[in-house]
Amino acid sequence: MILQRISDSSDVKKLNSKELALLSEEMREEIIAAINGNGGHLSSNLGILETTVALYKTFDFPKDKLIFDVGHQCYPHKILSGRRENFSTIRTEGGISGFPDCNESEYDLFTTGHAGNSIALGLGLCSARDKNQEDYYVITVVGDGALVNGLNLEAINASNEKPKKFIVILNDNGMSISKNRNGFYNFISKATIKKGYVKNKNVIKKIFGNSVVTAFFRGVRNFFKRVLNKSEYFERFGFKYVGVVDGNDLKKTLNVLESVKQAANYKAVFLHLKTTKGKGHKNAEEHADLYHSVGKNLKCGCSEETSLGQILGDLIEKDDKIVAVTAGMKDGTGLAALEERYPDNLFDVGIAEEYAVTFAAGMAKGGLKPVVAVYSTFLQRAYDEMVHDVCLQNLPVVFCVDRAGFVGEDGKTHQGLFDLSYTTHIPNMTVIAPTCAAELKSAIEYALSIKSPVCIRYSKFNVDLPATEYVDGTWQTLKDGEDITVFAVGGAAVSLALMFAERYGKSVKVVSARVVKPLDTETLLNTHTPVITVEENVLAGGFGSSVTAFLAHNNPLPVYSVGVKDAFVGHGSVKRQLENNGFTVENLTIIADGLLQNNVRKKTIK
Amino acid sequence: MILQRISDSSDVKKLNSKELALLSEEMREEIIAAINGNGGHLSSNLGILETTVALYKTFDFPKDKLIFDVGHQCYPHKILSGRRENFSTIRTEGGISGFPDCNESEYDLFTTGHAGNSIALGLGLCSARDKNQEDYYVITVVGDGALVNGLNLEAINASNEKPKKFIVILNDNGMSISKNRNGFYNFISKATIKKGYVKNKNVIKKIFGNSVVTAFFRGVRNFFKRVLNKSEYFERFGFKYVGVVDGNDLKKTLNVLESVKQAANYKAVFLHLKTTKGKGHKNAEEHADLYHSVGKNLKCGCSEETSLGQILGDLIEKDDKIVAVTAGMKDGTGLAALEERYPDNLFDVGIAEEYAVTFAAGMAKGGLKPVVAVYSTFLQRAYDEMVHDVCLQNLPVVFCVDRAGFVGEDGKTHQGLFDLSYTTHIPNMTVIAPTCAAELKSAIEYALSIKSPVCIRYSKFNVDLPATEYVDGTWQTLKDGEDITVFAVGGAAVSLALMFAERYGKSVKVVSARVVKPLDTETLLNTHTPVITVEENVLAGGFGSSVTAFLAHNNPLPVYSVGVKDAFVGHGSVKRQLENNGFTVENLTIIADGLLQNNVRKKTIK
Repeated sequence: MILQRISDSSDVKKLNSKELALLSEEMREEIIAAINGNGGHLSSNLGILETTVALYKTFDFPKDKLIFDVGHQCYPHKILSGRRENFSTIRTEGGISGFPDCNESEYDLFTTGHAGNSIALGLGLCSARDKNQEDYYVITVVGDGALVNGLNLEAINASNEKPKKFIVILNDNGMSISKNRNGFYNFISKATIKKGYVKNKNVIKKIFGNSVVTAFFRGVRNFFKRVLNKSEYFERFGFKYVGVVDGNDLKKTLNVLESVKQAANYKAVFLHLKTTKGKGHKNAEEHADLYHSVGKNLKCGCSEETSLGQILGDLIEKDDKIVAVTAGMKDGTGLAALEERYPDNLFDVGIAEEYAVTFAAGMAKGGLKPVVAVYSTFLQRAYDEMVHDVCLQNLPVVFCVDRAGFVGEDGKTHQGLFDLSYTTHIPNMTVIAPTCAAELKSAIEYALSIKSPVCIRYSKFNVDLPATEYVDGTWQTLKDGEDITVFAVGGAAVSLALMFAERYGKSVKVVSARVVKPLDTETLLNTHTPVITVEENVLAGGFGSSVTAFLAHNNPLPVYSVGVKDAFVGHGSVKRQLENNGFTVENLTIIADGLLQNNVRKKTIK
Repeated sequence: MILQRISDSSDVKKLNSKELALLSEEMREEIIAAINGNGGHLSSNLGILETTVALYKTFDFPKDKLIFDVGHQCYPHKILSGRRENFSTIRTEGGISGFPDCNESEYDLFTTGHAGNSIALGLGLCSARDKNQEDYYVITVVGDGALVNGLNLEAINASNEKPKKFIVILNDNGMSISKNRNGFYNFISKATIKKGYVKNKNVIKKIFGNSVVTAFFRGVRNFFKRVLNKSEYFERFGFKYVGVVDGNDLKKTLNVLESVKQAANYKAVFLHLKTTKGKGHKNAEEHADLYHSVGKNLKCGCSEETSLGQILGDLIEKDDKIVAVTAGMKDGTGLAALEERYPDNLFDVGIAEEYAVTFAAGMAKGGLKPVVAVYSTFLQRAYDEMVHDVCLQNLPVVFCVDRAGFVGEDGKTHQGLFDLSYTTHIPNMTVIAPTCAAELKSAIEYALSIKSPVCIRYSKFNVDLPATEYVDGTWQTLKDGEDITVFAVGGAAVSLALMFAERYGKSVKVVSARVVKPLDTETLLNTHTPVITVEENVLAGGFGSSVTAFLAHNNPLPVYSVGVKDAFVGHGSVKRQLENNGFTVENLTIIADGLLQNNVRKKTIK
């Protein structure tokens, strides 16, 4: 096997093109095997495989800098950059991350998982390089879905003079996470020439020798006419545009990269590659949507197994003014179920969380009832839009904040551990944390009824919980008790609290704090025992801090909060992430003992 | 005076073009007079005046919907929409707001002050209108600076089919808040024809009767060649492009709007107007930058009067790796002082806060020392970039968060009352709150020394405070005391605490909590009196909540926090905003009495 000879990037540079082709095939098998074992992003990594091999042959990493936008397509890069032997540990605790991680390797400049930052990061890096009079290439690889994220668009627009030795590679596979049908994509894809007008070094030289615009008006119309629009577009923004080239054709990609490298010595280059998502894996190639992230099935502890799309579909049946909005997360949030049932009530705007939220604000103002479904970690991008466009207007937009809490294998970039902190301090916002699918449904109905902004945040529902009452703004006492009270937010926390109540020697009251904001002040004022709060969120600005402040002002009681420590949480199982942050019966026991002795500091509390 | 006859929009529609011209002149005087008295945005409102008058003549507000991006150019709109008589109260407490305010008038659909949201709001509104089978025009007016904000770019890109009766008016005055030199602007301005190629209704009809692209290839090259690029650009994104028209020429603007209105019945229209900022006011026209927002001079209570640009200039003199980044706030943040002294160390990226932050992250990775200066309210837009691109990477980016705390006359959309809540919960972030310009300088030096992300947040420094020690991560005791301790954040809070200490009957210790995160735990552990915290930030997730949680866990003491209530704070003087939120000696007295009696609930505390 050639793969066994690759211990770092220099080994790739020694291979000839035949060996590189073999290497690609071996890598393909390696990636499929690892993902079958550990879950992960299959299609995108198979799609970018040959391009990555060609990049390693052409450039000199880590001296040259390679940035992957979003980052989930970094597996071939990891294999070639000294992490081949550990590759089978991908996405497991202590193993390598499924995303670039700057603590893992000098080949990973940035720890990335959110879309849209690569061009800005690259331009910043070039600025520093040029100011420090250093010499290296900066290359960003960005998918067509992420290219049109507002942050990337700002970066493309930032200056009409782009730095030399800066190469943006558009990995165009004709879809973002789901299908991409926006204007920019239309704009660049309409101009595509099937076989690519840049076939070899000589043709590229010709192009770089003449301004495309001047050439055009000098009469070379027939050659350029179909490609003019996008090439001129990128020209105006300071790039030489090169494309379209088949990024799964290793030989062509090697050729074009060699030329692009030369051209980049004079001007920034925008290289447009077409690739096939899931290349070389029949199922993945045909159903790229489904294979975007191959994970284990969700289990619902609640009796009723359902999806957000199912819940909303049932509500739309009664009220057509309800509309669902997402930002490239139609499948992940379960909204895909609406696609056949109520296609006119579903808006997937692509990877543009900011637009999704402000667009929903406009719809709410116009009399619709928008439900915006986005993962907790990605909704961070629309914090200002939540403040300024939704809450300041007090518009009835409902946010379904999926993947709130620990997310397990996706790790640092994807944890949903900040949303309670970034939503509860916004005036006019109500924040609800259902513990199961039935409660989620009830929470959405409640949210739609109160006609003001509501965040409903939930994790994967994978715990067995008692049946719940209708969500109405109050908390639910699940078990009464005399000695100590646990206020828990969300399924995992409530489940832990119930387990603790069962095992702890004294009498524990367990309350599901389903509405995180506003607090159920009646319940808090009627509490007369020491209090423990538990939440899957960082402690600062979270539920525990609200409860502690309220009690300090209104009903001073001993209180201790369990939540996520002030650090980014790496990949691993959700179970281990909970344990590492003190979500254990043992830790709750130590805390309860301390509170009951009125001396919380004697033992070590996690 | 014609102006006196205008009590709502219907009165404008009755006027003939001569009367409309007179009306415009009268409005110009009215606006200049009001701004001379109350401060405000002069240039932009003079620039948009004729266009606004023409819009009111052509459309039927409030049935038709008018959205101003950013919103500071809404003064003529306010005058024509029933608020003429109160116009002189603009920006004063109880008077009308300097920005559109949905609680003020049905003509103001949204309360706006942040850039980039208008196209998304407009598209959402159109979606609702069409789903509800209603019939009205939606018109957004957006400046060239705001047009290229990522949120607007996402909206332009959102779909290649834009709704009918949707009109985006580009108010192109050739500058954002400061000069605009980005790619997009270059792209659209390069194509500008001086006299506008659309002169009358007939020509427009011709254009709408033919696809621009087809027409081009049919040979009408000479006519279109200079305008092709941008018109085709907007065509691809689902707009008919019309322009360029002189938006200060009332007659031309009336003509083109009438045609655009007809055209919009068939397809969304992008209308490109050129206007002159500060039109009709000699000084404002020549120095549009300076007159963007005409405010009173800043006073510095500290002995040393300086600006951020001065401070950074002195630091750059010793270390050329320090670079300043801002997002269209060069003048407001004081960075303009660097423009002559170290132009290569200053990066104004335009109204693109997200890009500013991620670009700075790239620079930091490349070995520079970026200082990002942005107002507290606008930095909200880059919350995710702070989390994901800066703090997750633990990169040494320093944020100078200006206008933190109450901002006075700008009101709801501009208050800097959330930044402690949206920054302190981010892992790796240090948050500092200097009380005066000398402390700001020291804080920047400290921030640059610790090589990790730091937010330095400060309000207008307008209080007299005692000389300070070097900022080094600890708090500073300004006055010792035995009975009660006040931990205060920032100039206004510290100043209030000192006043309270002087007047209160018992012995008060006053501590300037200069470093909000991490807390000075040694000081907190050595505190043995009841505690009051004071901060210009919402209470949830702020300084007080951190202190309360820390004390509850580690050193249980009676504690009460003074901060901003859970509501958006309207315009008025900073003094009144402080008073309304309990920043008074009287309120502190009630709190202290309550804490010392161990019964905080007996009296009404604000």
